Amino acid sequence: MSDFSKPSMSRRQLLAMIGTAAGSAAMYQAMTTLGVAQESPYQGPINLDGDPNGASVLILGAGLAGMVAALELRQAGYNVQVLEYREKAGGRNWTLRGGDTYTELGGFTQNVEFDEGHYLNPGPWRIPYHHHAVLDYCKRLGVRLEPFVQVNHNAYLHSMDAFGGEPQRFRHINSDFRGNVAELLSKAVNQNALDEDVTGEDRELLLESLREWGALDSDLRYVESEHTSEFRGFGRDPGGGLTGVPEPSAPIGTSDLLSSHLWQYLSTGNLYEFQMPMFQPVGGMDMIGQAFQRELEDLIRFNTKVIEINQSEDGVTVTYTDSNDEGETETATADWCICTIPFSILSQIENNFSGPMNNAIAALPYAASVKFGLQMRRRFWEEDEAIFGGISYTNLPISLIGYPSTDFNSGGKGVLLGGYSWGPYAYEFTSMAPEERVRLAVEQGARIHPQYNDEFENGIAVGWHRVPWTLGCYGVWTEETREEHYPTAADFDGRVLMAGEHISYIPAWMEGAILSSLDAITRLHERVMNE
Amino acid sequence: MSDFSKPSMSRRQLLAMIGTAAGSAAMYQAMTTLGVAQESPYQGPINLDGDPNGASVLILGAGLAGMVAALELRQAGYNVQVLEYREKAGGRNWTLRGGDTYTELGGFTQNVEFDEGHYLNPGPWRIPYHHHAVLDYCKRLGVRLEPFVQVNHNAYLHSMDAFGGEPQRFRHINSDFRGNVAELLSKAVNQNALDEDVTGEDRELLLESLREWGALDSDLRYVESEHTSEFRGFGRDPGGGLTGVPEPSAPIGTSDLLSSHLWQYLSTGNLYEFQMPMFQPVGGMDMIGQAFQRELEDLIRFNTKVIEINQSEDGVTVTYTDSNDEGETETATADWCICTIPFSILSQIENNFSGPMNNAIAALPYAASVKFGLQMRRRFWEEDEAIFGGISYTNLPISLIGYPSTDFNSGGKGVLLGGYSWGPYAYEFTSMAPEERVRLAVEQGARIHPQYNDEFENGIAVGWHRVPWTLGCYGVWTEETREEHYPTAADFDGRVLMAGEHISYIPAWMEGAILSSLDAITRLHERVMNE
Repeated sequence: MSDFSKPSMSRRQLLAMIGTAAGSAAMYQAMTTLGVAQESPYQGPINLDGDPNGASVLILGAGLAGMVAALELRQAGYNVQVLEYREKAGGRNWTLRGGDTYTELGGFTQNVEFDEGHYLNPGPWRIPYHHHAVLDYCKRLGVRLEPFVQVNHNAYLHSMDAFGGEPQRFRHINSDFRGNVAELLSKAVNQNALDEDVTGEDRELLLESLREWGALDSDLRYVESEHTSEFRGFGRDPGGGLTGVPEPSAPIGTSDLLSSHLWQYLSTGNLYEFQMPMFQPVGGMDMIGQAFQRELEDLIRFNTKVIEINQSEDGVTVTYTDSNDEGETETATADWCICTIPFSILSQIENNFSGPMNNAIAALPYAASVKFGLQMRRRFWEEDEAIFGGISYTNLPISLIGYPSTDFNSGGKGVLLGGYSWGPYAYEFTSMAPEERVRLAVEQGARIHPQYNDEFENGIAVGWHRVPWTLGCYGVWTEETREEHYPTAADFDGRVLMAGEHISYIPAWMEGAILSSLDAITRLHERVMNE
Repeated sequence: MSDFSKPSMSRRQLLAMIGTAAGSAAMYQAMTTLGVAQESPYQGPINLDGDPNGASVLILGAGLAGMVAALELRQAGYNVQVLEYREKAGGRNWTLRGGDTYTELGGFTQNVEFDEGHYLNPGPWRIPYHHHAVLDYCKRLGVRLEPFVQVNHNAYLHSMDAFGGEPQRFRHINSDFRGNVAELLSKAVNQNALDEDVTGEDRELLLESLREWGALDSDLRYVESEHTSEFRGFGRDPGGGLTGVPEPSAPIGTSDLLSSHLWQYLSTGNLYEFQMPMFQPVGGMDMIGQAFQRELEDLIRFNTKVIEINQSEDGVTVTYTDSNDEGETETATADWCICTIPFSILSQIENNFSGPMNNAIAALPYAASVKFGLQMRRRFWEEDEAIFGGISYTNLPISLIGYPSTDFNSGGKGVLLGGYSWGPYAYEFTSMAPEERVRLAVEQGARIHPQYNDEFENGIAVGWHRVPWTLGCYGVWTEETREEHYPTAADFDGRVLMAGEHISYIPAWMEGAILSSLDAITRLHERVMNE
């Protein structure tokens, strides 16, 4: 139970201790190949050298892709205008707070009633450590970050079809699955079943590693013991004085574990996109959009609905109306256009793009997704269940419950991500009135946290297919559509370049939007310089 | 690459969707057995009912154990005095900041030169989510917490004896070990080597789960692919536009992986004590000690060195001098004594405890441990290597490098935990002058981060065997000494009860100190009430 195992000192290590280790020159050489940048397409702040000579660019959409383009092209000397449908910038980089009002397609209006300091991010809500472009813009724009707790070993895994519907702690499923795998593989090795695959010294090392990693006993078995409890948690935790003797906990049986299907939730935190650490802006995801907006306020025309895009050999003309009063039309013109309007919307806008581009636009469906924000009178997940941040997963339609990564252990209220649904469930939820969505999310969540019944105060639900300015969550490429249409979608169409998460290999992520934009403006600048 | 796999709707789930799932009553019943408290010896704020009738308690030591006892006994109506050796409270709950001066046994003085806002916690530095007593006192005392990043998939695992000394990313070793294990076990199952252990439906479920969890391909192999890269990371990360095509990375070969021994570092984050999430007080660990001190200021006599403890049938008399001027002696008396002085120190204090108690005191060695704080001019681990918090492990004597869990992505300076050594290495380091310790920590750390050579500014090193008021890090019970001496150590010795991390089953942790104290004062109060 101490901090970690004690090292024993080898001769090599003793040499290191006195600073005369051999081979350090070779090692230093190896080190120079390190560094993170080589793995990322983001190579630090973009450098658009050369004078664009007054060239103008019209940017459609003030989401992250549009604002990155605006910021960098202005910096490079371009004449930039941005048209934005909404009354503010950010796009899907969006946070709803108490006092906000949101009207969705179909006319339902939700008035957000969260207490001050609480929020829901209907769109992106976490930043991987390797989203270098997002992180760098946060740094440059002064957006403060805090850890987003993605993996929580004390959160629940829940299935209506397993353990009588009783939620299980992640640490129990995680430890027991690993322990079972280690025990079974050890047995196979010891029965010489893998002698063709693992030979000689590897065989002994494999057994040693399985024993350690899987918390196996000296007979290579995963059994109820203090040792396995040091991984999965105890029946009774160790304590102090005369009352502190720990009691081990009993592992779940192999069949129950396998048939529960709860192992399907173990991988999330091992995925590159969801590995710890992850981050969120302090105060809500739209702190990023707000920071961009502060820089670009004078370039953006808000409340502007694009109704036609027309290009000639000389330039691009965009016709628009006021978003809230679709009477009179006006036009804006520029030499070039960066169009970040989602294809789901763009497919409804008159244009004279090429046939192949319009085929690409038509070929990209947008994912259905719903997010719920539920304010609770009391942070019962922390107070009753010691769940501080992280995510519980369930096979109920809500799919998951996300716990806030703020104000830990401070008491008071909290807003849960009461669900985050995809696919058929998301279509179902989106088809309902918001209050019915919320009612169901509360009913379902109460199966995992019965405290919902007493503590729920108010809630909202954003179904992305009803968000008027995206009509969906993100562009879904299949292997086939990407092969057929992506090269067209990403390439110049006359004087227009598309940008946004849909023009990337990281759909749905802010990083995709930014990298797409940087790629687009790099090519635009090259073309301007070569003209 | 989207957020997670899409659910398909089963009949059961559809029923759940419309709120008429069968069996929900049974499920609700099961839910009532949930809750965290049952697993913990901490059952919320202690309740010492009844009037102690003016009984007095002398508490020796104003560490966490002593201060919990003082706070709760005063609240229960006892007459409480605390004697503390140092000029401030907290004990091993200790933070060193710029401007602090620390003089160790042997006379070496270190002047801490960190910039403002930076610190080293020489003692405890992280709080597990299940240390309910620590968390509850933080809440009650208003100590704000923030996440401590324990697990970082982008941190390094390093061995002088593997990969030519080149550090490996945790995610590479972690993914590849898991993938290899899954592939080998799948093969054994498919060769029917485990037919006696895994039968029928379990067999297919096991293969399905291994494929998913281990990132295996359709032939159940762990190979270079986009799929395995979605776990271990890519050769080139996916990007945007026309330049964003991802390139997969190549897994490490099985033999290299096993012989590296780096798998030994994979388990830390799976241990109950180190599972995410973990926490730290905002501003340094001693925010806890400071908060207690504010509550108890008037009860504590600082700079007080206990030189003799004498008890009779009626009470306890403690003789002390000024810590800084050991001339005159004074005495304090009380009906009872809670003694939180570490046994390493107590063994040198005159007393009239029973023979068995003095045997117990003599039988408990204290662990050697050294921590290093190194200030760097630049947060190169974040800027160059995308390591935001977490820990890199090495088989060098420094054992690990811990990255600060504060001010992420904000640029500027940072103080690394430049090493945290135990056992023989710790003895070696402690035997050196502080500046030599620091020199070696910098030299060794530079093998993992060559940037040390340019960026190191100043550093400190605390060797716990030279800390004058503990002479070691924590009390190390073996199975034998615990069986022979612990019951004596934890029980009444006349009118004295010991408390502290050493009188617990969670040695070295603040939770052990607090639970030990609560256990002791509960028994003290019972005895007082029964007299």
